[in-house]
Amino acid sequence: MLNRVRSAVAHLVSSGGAPPPRPKSPDLPNAPSAQTAAPPEAPRSPPARAGSSAPAKTVEARASFSRPTFLQLSPGGLRRADDHAGRAVQSPPDTGRRLPWSTGYAEVINAGKSRHNEDQACCEVVYVEGRRSVSGAPREPSQGQGLCFYYWGLFDGHAGGGAAEMASRLLHRHIREQLKDLVEILQDPSPPPLCLPSTPGAPGSSDASHLVGPQSCCSSQKEVTHESLVVGAIENAFQFMDEQMARERRGHQVEGGCCALVVVYLLGKVYVANAGDSRAIIVRNGEIIPMSREFTPETERQRLQLLGFLKPELLGGEFTHLEFPRRIQPKELGQRMLYRDQNMTGWAYKKIELEDLRFPLVCGEGKKARVMATIGVTRGLGDHNLKVCSSTLPIKPFLSCFPEVRVYDLTQYEHCPDDVLVLGTDGLWDVTSDCEVAATVDRVLSAYEPNDASRYTALAQALVLGARGIPRDRGWRLPNNKLGSGDDISVFVIPLGGPGSYS
Amino acid sequence: MLNRVRSAVAHLVSSGGAPPPRPKSPDLPNAPSAQTAAPPEAPRSPPARAGSSAPAKTVEARASFSRPTFLQLSPGGLRRADDHAGRAVQSPPDTGRRLPWSTGYAEVINAGKSRHNEDQACCEVVYVEGRRSVSGAPREPSQGQGLCFYYWGLFDGHAGGGAAEMASRLLHRHIREQLKDLVEILQDPSPPPLCLPSTPGAPGSSDASHLVGPQSCCSSQKEVTHESLVVGAIENAFQFMDEQMARERRGHQVEGGCCALVVVYLLGKVYVANAGDSRAIIVRNGEIIPMSREFTPETERQRLQLLGFLKPELLGGEFTHLEFPRRIQPKELGQRMLYRDQNMTGWAYKKIELEDLRFPLVCGEGKKARVMATIGVTRGLGDHNLKVCSSTLPIKPFLSCFPEVRVYDLTQYEHCPDDVLVLGTDGLWDVTSDCEVAATVDRVLSAYEPNDASRYTALAQALVLGARGIPRDRGWRLPNNKLGSGDDISVFVIPLGGPGSYS
Repeated sequence: MLNRVRSAVAHLVSSGGAPPPRPKSPDLPNAPSAQTAAPPEAPRSPPARAGSSAPAKTVEARASFSRPTFLQLSPGGLRRADDHAGRAVQSPPDTGRRLPWSTGYAEVINAGKSRHNEDQACCEVVYVEGRRSVSGAPREPSQGQGLCFYYWGLFDGHAGGGAAEMASRLLHRHIREQLKDLVEILQDPSPPPLCLPSTPGAPGSSDASHLVGPQSCCSSQKEVTHESLVVGAIENAFQFMDEQMARERRGHQVEGGCCALVVVYLLGKVYVANAGDSRAIIVRNGEIIPMSREFTPETERQRLQLLGFLKPELLGGEFTHLEFPRRIQPKELGQRMLYRDQNMTGWAYKKIELEDLRFPLVCGEGKKARVMATIGVTRGLGDHNLKVCSSTLPIKPFLSCFPEVRVYDLTQYEHCPDDVLVLGTDGLWDVTSDCEVAATVDRVLSAYEPNDASRYTALAQALVLGARGIPRDRGWRLPNNKLGSGDDISVFVIPLGGPGSYS
Repeated sequence: MLNRVRSAVAHLVSSGGAPPPRPKSPDLPNAPSAQTAAPPEAPRSPPARAGSSAPAKTVEARASFSRPTFLQLSPGGLRRADDHAGRAVQSPPDTGRRLPWSTGYAEVINAGKSRHNEDQACCEVVYVEGRRSVSGAPREPSQGQGLCFYYWGLFDGHAGGGAAEMASRLLHRHIREQLKDLVEILQDPSPPPLCLPSTPGAPGSSDASHLVGPQSCCSSQKEVTHESLVVGAIENAFQFMDEQMARERRGHQVEGGCCALVVVYLLGKVYVANAGDSRAIIVRNGEIIPMSREFTPETERQRLQLLGFLKPELLGGEFTHLEFPRRIQPKELGQRMLYRDQNMTGWAYKKIELEDLRFPLVCGEGKKARVMATIGVTRGLGDHNLKVCSSTLPIKPFLSCFPEVRVYDLTQYEHCPDDVLVLGTDGLWDVTSDCEVAATVDRVLSAYEPNDASRYTALAQALVLGARGIPRDRGWRLPNNKLGSGDDISVFVIPLGGPGSYS
């Protein structure tokens, strides 16, 4: 996440202390100054496949720089991964344990805009043990009726690496917590019960005959699918993760915020949950299927403006919820300026009044678009301390931690080894179009045997390299001599042939 | 608009008087009781192609039943059009002046659910004279630099015909008013000025050099297109129309509300603006291009829930913003019920608390979905008096008068005589799929010569007949013996070959 939080980093106070002095560079985050690498023997992520593993609520203080455990970096490797000059592409070692599902992964640090790589990643197989049976009867631990899900997460941090690091360690555990109640329900082909007993042994009330005095529009029961329960579990897990960050930000170093792009594979379906400006696409038989959309001040303009309109106190008298095509000058008072409000997609002229001279809540275009002149993404986790520059006005009320979840049914199509789901942080997509990614998929995978398990890592590396470029002409350049991405770049390549099919 | 407003019609008070007693049928609107038809010599709509015609602000009281002037109905014809038993399909006469743009039109009254046909329609060519020159210099009236737009409007009334009738007479004039400032700008190929002088003769300030002290994210000017100015003009016209209804509802008979589906053709582009549950599709070379989407409690659930969450006072302690799959029973307190809030698309379980026993803000499914148990559409004009049944809680705050506007560039494709834009009220779409409409387009138009101007009216008639069915087995039945639509049905068929091309 490069250049996505401006000016406001100085206000990222920790533990309720006074704001630190503003750093010289507005893009330099308030990151821990120690450059010592975390020892590799301290694993980033405890084993997730254990019902008895530490609950999601527990957080250890973890101030030092870290990279994903699955990279198996030695202290020297960690230093190379942290080197802005060399920008060496990192992948899991060929010799080590492969990532689940033959997943390919590659990453590279930014060109110097933040001290460390603020992207984080996680790839796990997670076992969910049911909390109790739906009928209320106590479960036998040996029954083996739990569920497994595959999990991939990309977290693009801004204004510090703490939130991304914490999310990469804990978000999948929140998802597991949410799924615990659903273990039996999801494995039962009948429709989910609408109502569950509050205590084990109490009778359920999913029977429609309990209804009395139905009203015309509410007499029927809505059909709720298994799929929508998983979507709801993921949505709530994002919220619980965000709330945990809010609770623990003072005791621990949870600096900044992060975008979160998460994939869950469960019972034949792929759930892609996105909160931020990372992106997921499926490349299937050369065809591109978008699996996410980006949440930015431009794409969420109307949501932000509506909130500012309904809750003007959130604007603190400093901002106007109206959008103008440029900043208005005081001498233009009384003239007529183009504007649009929360209801409009088109533009119209309005007479400029005094309050229109306030700074617009949403301004700028493309990568320069900002909420309250500060942040360039509108969904994600963390950012609880984020304030408007030179002000105490909080920005968090305008940010949403809720992802949009898209579902892809893996069983509806016979996938070949070249069909992949590609996840990338904005470092990839800023300089690479969907079509260019699809072309790289075709070019790289056709150079490897279909059963060569290293092909997906090679593809991830090629995508990262293609977005980074090579150092030339005072910068990182692409073959067409355009600037490569100076941002952190992280890419997962997930083959769609199913777990183990091509490993 | 059939069955779209329940129970609440009794609360549609007029002129601030006490609510009338609730009618026996909840679907019978509070319509004027006089069944006398308006004399045909009293035109519904004054000629629009006149800069000096009455301004949009003027409204005559108009309590009696009327049908679109272009139908040229005699008193006897008007009685037949008002006959629920015969349900004769109405179209402009073959012998009379054709509708602009060789437009086809047909309509039929409902099967008895409301006293009169609550749909209304308008088809006009509207001349816009510029209000003044952009440069501030007074305009010569003889300069002839005005603009013409073609206009079609379908208005589907509910809980009375007043709002639909008023909108059909006045909305295009509000659009003309909004366009008056844009006459010169839209004809100038250079980008629109961002700022206009407040008074004629004052210098404009569209010059970027006026900017001082640019801030990082607001230093640039946004590009605003001519197209987005027209979109903004249409959006604001809807709002002004709605505000006029609010102002004049007491002095005049503006009962109920209406959905509005409007098409504007201006300078090569077709603008389709929809607020409600009517629908527009283009059928082009057999392909279907959706030109609108419906706004209902289901499609706008999250907007409604967010408003209820942010402004709980609008729920009056009677409703909960949470959605449940069915009404909760008091005895279920403490159990866990599926729910979703304004942030969720999936479902999850929550423990039932006392306030969850309130009636859900949004409930029901499909055509039975309702806001506050009352209204089944969430956008449109009017409804300023609409209250929740047995309560004084207003529903209007949850309804939006803003349309979604989609733009189709007529110049980007060489259209053949069989390419059409079809507009229909929900009476058509409730029983007819987009594909069935496309099949009817093909079947009917291929039976006529391409230059036969009557083919588009024949197509509109076929669509209305196909949705109405024939009286059989105690109801109106389609050929497959399913029930036909008992609602008012109105259809415009607009050939895309351009004005006059096929007339």
